[in-house]
Amino acid sequence: MATVGPVLRVLGYFLVGLAILMLAPALLDIYFSNPDWIAFALSSLFVGLLGLLLAVSTANYKLEHLTIRQAFLLTTTSWFVMPVCGALPFLSLGIGFENAFFESVSGFTTTGSTVLIGLDGMPPGLLFWRSLTQWIGGIGIIVMAILLMPLLRIGGMQLFRTESSDRGEKIVARATDLTRLIGGVYIMLTLTCAILYVFSGMSLFDAVNHAMTTLSSGGFSTHDASFAYFESTAAEWVAVVFMLASGLPFVVLIKSLTKNPMALLQDPQARAFIFVIIILSSMTALYLGIENKFTFGRAVVEALFVVISIITTTGYGLGDYTAWGPPMMGFFLMLTFIGGCTGSTSGGIKIFRFIVFFGTVRAYMNKMIRPDQVVPVRYGDTKITPDLAFSVLAFLVVYMATVGLITVILGGLGLDLVTAMSAATTAVSNVGPGLGDVVGPVGNFADIPSSAKIVLSAAMLLGRLELFTVLVLFNPEFWR
Amino acid sequence: MATVGPVLRVLGYFLVGLAILMLAPALLDIYFSNPDWIAFALSSLFVGLLGLLLAVSTANYKLEHLTIRQAFLLTTTSWFVMPVCGALPFLSLGIGFENAFFESVSGFTTTGSTVLIGLDGMPPGLLFWRSLTQWIGGIGIIVMAILLMPLLRIGGMQLFRTESSDRGEKIVARATDLTRLIGGVYIMLTLTCAILYVFSGMSLFDAVNHAMTTLSSGGFSTHDASFAYFESTAAEWVAVVFMLASGLPFVVLIKSLTKNPMALLQDPQARAFIFVIIILSSMTALYLGIENKFTFGRAVVEALFVVISIITTTGYGLGDYTAWGPPMMGFFLMLTFIGGCTGSTSGGIKIFRFIVFFGTVRAYMNKMIRPDQVVPVRYGDTKITPDLAFSVLAFLVVYMATVGLITVILGGLGLDLVTAMSAATTAVSNVGPGLGDVVGPVGNFADIPSSAKIVLSAAMLLGRLELFTVLVLFNPEFWR
Repeated sequence: MATVGPVLRVLGYFLVGLAILMLAPALLDIYFSNPDWIAFALSSLFVGLLGLLLAVSTANYKLEHLTIRQAFLLTTTSWFVMPVCGALPFLSLGIGFENAFFESVSGFTTTGSTVLIGLDGMPPGLLFWRSLTQWIGGIGIIVMAILLMPLLRIGGMQLFRTESSDRGEKIVARATDLTRLIGGVYIMLTLTCAILYVFSGMSLFDAVNHAMTTLSSGGFSTHDASFAYFESTAAEWVAVVFMLASGLPFVVLIKSLTKNPMALLQDPQARAFIFVIIILSSMTALYLGIENKFTFGRAVVEALFVVISIITTTGYGLGDYTAWGPPMMGFFLMLTFIGGCTGSTSGGIKIFRFIVFFGTVRAYMNKMIRPDQVVPVRYGDTKITPDLAFSVLAFLVVYMATVGLITVILGGLGLDLVTAMSAATTAVSNVGPGLGDVVGPVGNFADIPSSAKIVLSAAMLLGRLELFTVLVLFNPEFWR
Repeated sequence: MATVGPVLRVLGYFLVGLAILMLAPALLDIYFSNPDWIAFALSSLFVGLLGLLLAVSTANYKLEHLTIRQAFLLTTTSWFVMPVCGALPFLSLGIGFENAFFESVSGFTTTGSTVLIGLDGMPPGLLFWRSLTQWIGGIGIIVMAILLMPLLRIGGMQLFRTESSDRGEKIVARATDLTRLIGGVYIMLTLTCAILYVFSGMSLFDAVNHAMTTLSSGGFSTHDASFAYFESTAAEWVAVVFMLASGLPFVVLIKSLTKNPMALLQDPQARAFIFVIIILSSMTALYLGIENKFTFGRAVVEALFVVISIITTTGYGLGDYTAWGPPMMGFFLMLTFIGGCTGSTSGGIKIFRFIVFFGTVRAYMNKMIRPDQVVPVRYGDTKITPDLAFSVLAFLVVYMATVGLITVILGGLGLDLVTAMSAATTAVSNVGPGLGDVVGPVGNFADIPSSAKIVLSAAMLLGRLELFTVLVLFNPEFWR
């Protein structure tokens, strides 16, 4: 109990916060005279009471210091309990718990796959709640990546350790400070994005919702047709810019917005990310041009939008890009793995791991030829230790093995190979759309079996928590 | 030239050897009064003269000592030039060089994918030549894995270093000795297998050919229907036993046949390999039983045959196992990656790398929880160094990345995603059949575009040479 107590206390605070946030959609529904507000009021009451109960009953546990095991436990528990509670309002749709949970997990993990059909006619409260789960999940993951993961050394995240992240002390206090600091910029960026969306022709409601799911690289939309609904090139350009922002390391982004505009190009990860996007979008635009799918201008917008949407793991649809032809299918699948920068809201493998991978494997190949030569490998100014290199490579292997295993399981549950594989990839990478008629950009996850939805919910959480955060809990050593 | 000279001299010897071996199918065709013997006689003459020219013109270069760079160069060059020369007799079929080269590469790399249709009516010389390329390739890879790769430290192969493999000295002389020693047992096992095949009802010609492609985990057949042609459960059991043997570490296999029958179970790799096969075959048999595809007895044989055929990277067909249903597709794809033991004729990732991977990742996860705890990881009696762990993980990542990249390329060349991905996997793993109508177990690689055949030929060579042997040559550092 000494281990679990402080974890439950923090969890209690989280749930109280969540209960308060649930009042927003309730108020919205009341404003629009929609009876749906009751679902939110009841959910809020239940979650709030549960949270209070947890917080009060564990009030004697100090939060000054969290051990490593507590940090692991807190992370996984809260990313599981929050979606469970967040799923409650969806039950008012009568879709069953597995669907409600899937939608909620897809929200908090900022994945963006949906099982809901007929979004255009849904009550505003529910639509806003979907966007809000992604927006909360987005800031949650940024704080976690900056504060917690370097401490836990997940998949090479020790690369981003600072003096203060080396200790578990005052982690809760520091998390609160950091959330406030980052939250301010996050809100500001979301508002800016929303205003620009309004200028591009969106309604205020659509603009706010899409701004929230753009900045969080979530990708939930208020329309079944997703971004194709708006038919607005201006809105697409706004999305391109702010999706890109959602994939950049948030602290570096703040620095370049406030102090030094060149900060982005000085950061190894942001630089490589922008470079990769330019290369891949150009290739895609070139393909679209050669195949005469669009005019030149349109090809550029489509290529940028789709490549950035997938690589930042946002997952907005802009029509059926999988109809661009079989040659692009393998390309899209590959794109789904990459992900944005760490310290952003995006998922996937993430750019810094590719930098570490290429650097260390190159050094390894040089050493094969000249075994006596030792050249240190660097990430920016930091020397990459063998320990760090191992963490990154282990992450890469476990990532691909996880996708493979989930593919096999989904196949066993009856999904065809392309659907199973792309659903597994899009879930673990927190992207949203996969390939094929069912889980593709114009499909809907409603049509897959319930058992597969539960597997995919687990996959989204595994991916969001960078695999090892969850996997260590299954290690018997953890519980000794 | 000081670097290339000795390489060319060894290559010259190899080609002379190949020219002599080409006389065997020529004699066979003469015996069966088939005019096809001319193709072999001419090829033999050309290859023999080329080999003599190389050997004579470089006769002053000493072979006492090969540098690491020479070892790399020799390996890749000979595994490229031998298939080129071995392709010459196939040109008599008028199938064009890309098809002849694909068939020859598929032979020497013991992959077993074929572009030839109508095997049942082919001249015996050609059929025998196909089997012979696999048989030569098989012993070639065993000698390479024991002697060369530990020295070159390919993908963790330094684990199998012996005192003598630490130096490049007398490597040619030692290779000759080793080939003689191993060759004796290899021939004996092949003869035993052939005799048992005859007792199971095969013709002498079929028995010898299949014995050669069984022991080499190659999988070429003399019939379009592959093993399904024989409709003999006895022959299937013989295949099961000798395919299994082809996936075991050859030196350990020899030891257990001559000295200590328990040697196989004492070897970490062989033990894990047998364990994995038992688990996966049981699962498959269970599935077949539940789905009522076969009677119980038949389900066991089918499961064992297909699982062992894929995992040892033999690739014999026994009817269309991909018709067992969509739930098995992802499973078969996963199976294609695994591979047998190192030091055997089989390809794929190989069992020892999984042992090192699981051991080191487990230790890494323990260390996440208790950062101060250091528990050494072992492979049998050998301590796994960080260096070795990195090599193995780098191999795993590069393996999957290679398959991914080749999938994207094949997709770009017009193959659908399942065909592209399974063809890429089956080529890099040197298995043979993939999934889908075209490259599946009852399909034929003849139907894919020529450009894709060239890509797949490169993929087979890359896989056979454990990726890095080839990739280092593309490192500019190599040529400095």
